[in-house]
Amino acid sequence: MLPLPVLERAAAEIADVNGTGQSAMEMSHRSREFACIIENAERRLRTLMNIGDDYTVLFLQGGGWTQFAMVPLNLAGVEHGKAYKKATYIDTGIWAAKAAAEAAKYTDVRIGASSKDDAYAYIPKAPPPRSDDVYYYICLNNTIMGSTWAGLPETGRVPLVADISSCILSAPLDVSRFGLVFAGVQKNLGPAGCVIVIIRNNLISKAPAWVPDMMRYEIHTKEKSLFNTPPCYSIYIVNLVLEWLEEIGGVSEIYIRNKEKANVLYDYIDSSQFYYAPVEKQSRSLMNVRFGISENDISKREQLEKQFVQEAARSGLVNLAGHRLIGGLRASIYNAMPREGVCALIDFMREFASRAKT
Amino acid sequence: MLPLPVLERAAAEIADVNGTGQSAMEMSHRSREFACIIENAERRLRTLMNIGDDYTVLFLQGGGWTQFAMVPLNLAGVEHGKAYKKATYIDTGIWAAKAAAEAAKYTDVRIGASSKDDAYAYIPKAPPPRSDDVYYYICLNNTIMGSTWAGLPETGRVPLVADISSCILSAPLDVSRFGLVFAGVQKNLGPAGCVIVIIRNNLISKAPAWVPDMMRYEIHTKEKSLFNTPPCYSIYIVNLVLEWLEEIGGVSEIYIRNKEKANVLYDYIDSSQFYYAPVEKQSRSLMNVRFGISENDISKREQLEKQFVQEAARSGLVNLAGHRLIGGLRASIYNAMPREGVCALIDFMREFASRAKT
Repeated sequence: MLPLPVLERAAAEIADVNGTGQSAMEMSHRSREFACIIENAERRLRTLMNIGDDYTVLFLQGGGWTQFAMVPLNLAGVEHGKAYKKATYIDTGIWAAKAAAEAAKYTDVRIGASSKDDAYAYIPKAPPPRSDDVYYYICLNNTIMGSTWAGLPETGRVPLVADISSCILSAPLDVSRFGLVFAGVQKNLGPAGCVIVIIRNNLISKAPAWVPDMMRYEIHTKEKSLFNTPPCYSIYIVNLVLEWLEEIGGVSEIYIRNKEKANVLYDYIDSSQFYYAPVEKQSRSLMNVRFGISENDISKREQLEKQFVQEAARSGLVNLAGHRLIGGLRASIYNAMPREGVCALIDFMREFASRAKT
Repeated sequence: MLPLPVLERAAAEIADVNGTGQSAMEMSHRSREFACIIENAERRLRTLMNIGDDYTVLFLQGGGWTQFAMVPLNLAGVEHGKAYKKATYIDTGIWAAKAAAEAAKYTDVRIGASSKDDAYAYIPKAPPPRSDDVYYYICLNNTIMGSTWAGLPETGRVPLVADISSCILSAPLDVSRFGLVFAGVQKNLGPAGCVIVIIRNNLISKAPAWVPDMMRYEIHTKEKSLFNTPPCYSIYIVNLVLEWLEEIGGVSEIYIRNKEKANVLYDYIDSSQFYYAPVEKQSRSLMNVRFGISENDISKREQLEKQFVQEAARSGLVNLAGHRLIGGLRASIYNAMPREGVCALIDFMREFASRAKT
């Protein structure tokens, strides 16, 4: 979801950005006009996230999935025939597990802890890194599972790497605690097609020769994200969203709003007999509220949840089905979702529950 | 450049596509609405390019550069320690050379022929493939060099692979002559961020285990381009551009228009004493018209060309500088460029020449 003022501005500027006579869909990525857009986006991101000069910001393609490979290839890649380097992954959900599986092609991966035993309904206690780990990986907010890390694991001198795709700029984050974070922009920042990587400069090393050029942080850094044609229009929208975020008061303000939205929804669910929230309280996500209908008979429950999703959609409340891999229900209340949207959802939930009980 | 009717429709639909109440920038890629968009885009592309059922169409990310790696990784990838497979590349310009260099990481690359000796001003005679080549690679239209293949090399049973980024849907193309073609959409089809791959089904084989999941055609094929979140908005615009192309009469009509546009421009340049076109006539591109100012003194010429670019921009004629790696001048007259745009350019060229000569 994108803020309406951003969509309105994008529509107004669609054939002519800032009097250039060009659409942001048409600009050469080597033009002065686009340089201005990507520089503004980076400057705004640095200010909003308080990113130090010892970090590089990259705007890349290929989403989180490409980062699942780039992180091990660049941070732990070795020449063919050499012994793998080591990394610890914490398994807090499907995305963390997929990242670990991809990394295992290139790295000696240890799953330090997992909450799979309880359907990922909590964030497990994170063990210290191994002394020879070259990085330590977490998924900060688990989109599908509706969980989030309340505190960060202590990893000492081992760089902490995090997938922050579904929580970037939703709450304060101390970037200096990380060696690398990445986020696909499609949750809180813009149209799918761009992934933002924030990497501490001393981790940008030469990847082994066999790594594809498109997967080398060192090349994208040297070329300032213009190694190849970047997803210009996504970056243009990201810049507008960052400007909107500045205007409403930055991360501290959006965090207040996000907490309010999530609290009112979790409070309603917890107070309801009809719905339940499976994630333990201290690990609940502000962005992805996972819930279900309290009904012991599985097929009855699934039928009710299906009906819920269909009727909600008819009321204009879309995307409430849980992820296809786990089922149940989930409300994704990203930055751009207004409080009224959450209230409308609760009204619908209340009405649906009262109908279903009679 | 995009057709104005497409931009106007995108603006009108920016917050609500087809009454869904959602922007194409916000849609879940698993929604029915987006399924409809990507299916329409594929259907239109198949019809316009006359693509047989024995080919798969993929909408991916990472541009041509990612294909430079994916082609050898998937078509010629081997497990670590095994002998490389072989491929022939024809060096017709910077992009072909870069593709060959990337492939050489994974493949025994032979440069079958090169026109580098004459600054890539022609397409060299293509030798037959080696008997054990697993593919044969060409760049069909050389964006930077302004050249294009007048006929295709005969490769027998060896699959022909082509980068068609800057000529897709500009002229008729017999897809059945190829094993694989790919095109970044940003020249003729939509905003940067999506690359279209058309691959003959019998070439979609299992890549070696060490290849990143995002770089495996077999996975993207199985998941129908929805393995990860695709660049939805780019694909939405591509679908609108394909619809526009259908409406104006398809490839046969755009080819007539493109020939007219290119001919009038080349004719003017050839008839002028002030300008010259370096590419030999039978290899000239319909899309990228490379030219320069006839002046033997290099520094004088460069000064004049710089002045040309600056003054043209002031007249609303942008992006006329040659690629930063070779200099000179270049007019990219892609599908969306109207005939009037070319006429305006010629008027400016004539006026600039008469001023410069006095």
